[in-house]
Amino acid sequence: MGENLTIWTYDWVPEGPRGFVRDFRLRWGAEEAGLRYEVGTVAFEDRQASHFSRQPFGQVPFLTDGDITIFESGACLLHLARKSEILMPRDASGESATQQWVISALNSIEMVSVPWWFLRLSGDRENGLSGWLDSRLAHVEAVLSEREWLVADRFTAADLMMADVLRVPDIRARGNRPATEAYVERLVARPAFKKAYADQLAHFAAADQSRARR
Amino acid sequence: MGENLTIWTYDWVPEGPRGFVRDFRLRWGAEEAGLRYEVGTVAFEDRQASHFSRQPFGQVPFLTDGDITIFESGACLLHLARKSEILMPRDASGESATQQWVISALNSIEMVSVPWWFLRLSGDRENGLSGWLDSRLAHVEAVLSEREWLVADRFTAADLMMADVLRVPDIRARGNRPATEAYVERLVARPAFKKAYADQLAHFAAADQSRARR
Repeated sequence: MGENLTIWTYDWVPEGPRGFVRDFRLRWGAEEAGLRYEVGTVAFEDRQASHFSRQPFGQVPFLTDGDITIFESGACLLHLARKSEILMPRDASGESATQQWVISALNSIEMVSVPWWFLRLSGDRENGLSGWLDSRLAHVEAVLSEREWLVADRFTAADLMMADVLRVPDIRARGNRPATEAYVERLVARPAFKKAYADQLAHFAAADQSRARR
Repeated sequence: MGENLTIWTYDWVPEGPRGFVRDFRLRWGAEEAGLRYEVGTVAFEDRQASHFSRQPFGQVPFLTDGDITIFESGACLLHLARKSEILMPRDASGESATQQWVISALNSIEMVSVPWWFLRLSGDRENGLSGWLDSRLAHVEAVLSEREWLVADRFTAADLMMADVLRVPDIRARGNRPATEAYVERLVARPAFKKAYADQLAHFAAADQSRARR
């Protein structure tokens, strides 16, 4: 049996989230690591029981790797990271630090930034989470002022996840945080980022064409 | 060198969060696994550089294990889980599922429930996150209606984290979700939960007495 890695995403999404749908994190990781993968799809508009059976919240991405199915972008990325030293050092301390920062991007930053952005999209542009968000971003700025990469003095999955959380335009525009901005610029300039980004846009553009033909 | 496991928390906190400070997750995990540990403290009221150097957001917990320091309760719990099959099955599929559900508790539930609760505490009792929270809780209810444990038909760190996220009184009170309520009841009745809970309360009560003597 081969690797048989499949990244699952929606068959289509509206313009807004394109380039930010979370399957991007896995595409980017797989491109960095040189892992071959296919892309599978589930319906965006009419979510099926077979989707919920693999992702209980009806979200994407999920990942299939042979017999294993995994959901949560963070868990999927750590699964990919175990396949390639490019994404995560092999020693216990580097592995532990990578995992810690991946979870930190999700649970210390995204736990504030995504609900903040959700309230903002709902019309509450400065909302009850703004101060908390700014405080978290200031702490990240302090960390990134002192180092170029989060773990092991080189790119890892920790930077991938942190940069993906921080690259949201409304968050980049928030305050003067030069170290964070340089970090995001450095990460989104990577060839693997650009490849994954172009691939996600092309995936949803092809879906537009297929819908137009119906 | 021995195990030398230390769970770090605040030296004191106000009444409100007692029983819910996140070092609880590590105390509970260590008690379930029978791991010996010490408790170290950092100042709650005047957070020091030596604290930020180990937890860049000035939060708790963090964990020291010999030379390794880890922050983020999720990453610390997964570190403990690797030490004991009680917390995480040893096979690749059980390990992957445990990790997935720990991250899901943090990034699919807590990412909505904690900001919801934060806005609620700020006076906005029903707020812009209420609908999103209810939807996430309904999906968890659907999962827990079909099984007693999240992974491997037995208690794991996945249940520990999910139950700790769901046991917040304002969240338990939200809607009629009998499977979730039975799940939380089952988890908080565990002897290791009770031991960890009593220990956290005693830790902060001792700090009250020490402050009163000053």
